[in-house]
Amino acid sequence: MITLKELSKKCEVSIATISNILNGKSNVGEATKKRVLQVIEETGYKPNFMARGLRATKTKTIGLIVEDLTAFSSPLIIEGIMSHLEEKGYRTILENLRLYTKHPDAWTDIPKFSQIVNAAINQMMALKVDGIIYVAGHARSICIDYELENLSFVMAYAFSEKKDICCVNIDDEVSAFQMTDYLINNGKKQIAIIAGDKDNLHTKYRLNGYKKALQKNNIDFDESVVVYENWKRDGGVSGTKKLFSTSKKFDAIFCFNDLMAAGCYDVLAEKNIVPGKDISVVGFDNQSVCEYLKPNLTTMAISLSEIGYEAAKMLLDENFQNKLIPCKMILRDSI
Amino acid sequence: MITLKELSKKCEVSIATISNILNGKSNVGEATKKRVLQVIEETGYKPNFMARGLRATKTKTIGLIVEDLTAFSSPLIIEGIMSHLEEKGYRTILENLRLYTKHPDAWTDIPKFSQIVNAAINQMMALKVDGIIYVAGHARSICIDYELENLSFVMAYAFSEKKDICCVNIDDEVSAFQMTDYLINNGKKQIAIIAGDKDNLHTKYRLNGYKKALQKNNIDFDESVVVYENWKRDGGVSGTKKLFSTSKKFDAIFCFNDLMAAGCYDVLAEKNIVPGKDISVVGFDNQSVCEYLKPNLTTMAISLSEIGYEAAKMLLDENFQNKLIPCKMILRDSI
Repeated sequence: MITLKELSKKCEVSIATISNILNGKSNVGEATKKRVLQVIEETGYKPNFMARGLRATKTKTIGLIVEDLTAFSSPLIIEGIMSHLEEKGYRTILENLRLYTKHPDAWTDIPKFSQIVNAAINQMMALKVDGIIYVAGHARSICIDYELENLSFVMAYAFSEKKDICCVNIDDEVSAFQMTDYLINNGKKQIAIIAGDKDNLHTKYRLNGYKKALQKNNIDFDESVVVYENWKRDGGVSGTKKLFSTSKKFDAIFCFNDLMAAGCYDVLAEKNIVPGKDISVVGFDNQSVCEYLKPNLTTMAISLSEIGYEAAKMLLDENFQNKLIPCKMILRDSI
Repeated sequence: MITLKELSKKCEVSIATISNILNGKSNVGEATKKRVLQVIEETGYKPNFMARGLRATKTKTIGLIVEDLTAFSSPLIIEGIMSHLEEKGYRTILENLRLYTKHPDAWTDIPKFSQIVNAAINQMMALKVDGIIYVAGHARSICIDYELENLSFVMAYAFSEKKDICCVNIDDEVSAFQMTDYLINNGKKQIAIIAGDKDNLHTKYRLNGYKKALQKNNIDFDESVVVYENWKRDGGVSGTKKLFSTSKKFDAIFCFNDLMAAGCYDVLAEKNIVPGKDISVVGFDNQSVCEYLKPNLTTMAISLSEIGYEAAKMLLDENFQNKLIPCKMILRDSI
């Protein structure tokens, strides 16, 4: 491959001139520019992007720090980010922290978490990115313990404990409000809840939305029809059993994700109770399981790629205001 | 942030010496090394990896060119690749071609495909990677139309038309042989097939395995119980209906993926035929749907992360021989 030096000799211009042409600067005459670009094409010279990053003030490169690529939400969030960045002519550098497989303790070990994240930010800084988007594996409150100075930094699918970092998330509260209100408008009088972990932010915001919808419809909130489970199918099994073991009556079960709704279906089937007929069941996420459950599950669709798109837009527009993306109710046959 | 020059002044050693220390060279005295590393820690100096890449002959960086991160197989293949590379102290640079969303025509438009892939390879070359792993969105025959010269290049989850590029794939033929043989050993006399697209490589290799198992068990191959569909749930619906519209008898249906098996279940339910009782149904892939279908689907699990791991190992060991990864039969309740 021809080097920059050889190219400079062949074109009879300085290395700086070639660099100016490659970086799109306007201080080179059209004739020279045309000649150099033609030689570049003829020789197959490949500019070294790494070297370019050292000199230009803007590298037009955005760093993505991804907690774990195998989280179900990550690929679509990244798709949304890249779709906007590429539209705007930006490249991306992706760092996959592999928290699930490589550092499972880092979810709870805060010093370890900071060490891993800070190393990734350091690496991005060394690569001279223009900004960083942090893609979380699930929405929670995250503390980025790093002096970011002038570095633009946006968080997708998580909340920042530091107020100077802006975030894009789904609107859990409004979505849960809408779902609850819809159930009430369809004649449901007592809606039981299978929530996720009690201190999880999705759980908190969705419960808020649920309570607000009850309030709007003059229904008293009853703590005893709310159970907290582990977000998995077996959590749905356990939660449904707990609900049936109370003396309370309920005509609908709002599961805070689809996997727990699948577990709920399992218990109802054992009891010969038919969802959508004897009782209403709804979920959250719109994962593929919704269309395999019988009857098909009504749920709230999360627009993951929109989270990514908006995070990228926030970063490039430098319009740093927290943003919540509405979810979309997907009506199927379980109400 | 402190620069390399300032660091050099502060430590009273040359820039070359610092560079040697950072690159792990042994030609620096222990005392100097210790002093410099201490100053680096105190000042928070961040080595510029890009600059390092320019000088060292090996960058210890591997480029991943991924056809589409949103393909269900991609995250786990990448997880496998990264787990091996990181074990061995390599970094990765990931380029997501976004073929599904950005370039859907590139699956069939070969010149366009080459243009996109070649641009990605060029960029990796400019970044001075030590080698490239190409991660395909689904297994098919791919022609990399690029003069790779000395660049190590391995393909994961695809076959190369050029013999100088080695590949890691799943062993479709042996897996289909095993599944068919297992069904026959369990008393099935006529096994119908819902295959994928006729010219798809998975289809071809799995059919070969099926035929070999029939041959081993002295059963004649009957073309009329093989239908070709689109790999989706509706393909399974259409395929099952076609099979029932023939005059042929069969006591098992081997669907070449789980989604088509789900469609097969749909048609059987309409006909009040119970899988696992009145007829055997098996799938391929071991996607999450298997555990939602009732009865749970027996299938072949693809070890995606192992494909990635082996591709990374092949690249680093420079042991270039095509490799097939065995699948694993997951017995559930549908036989």
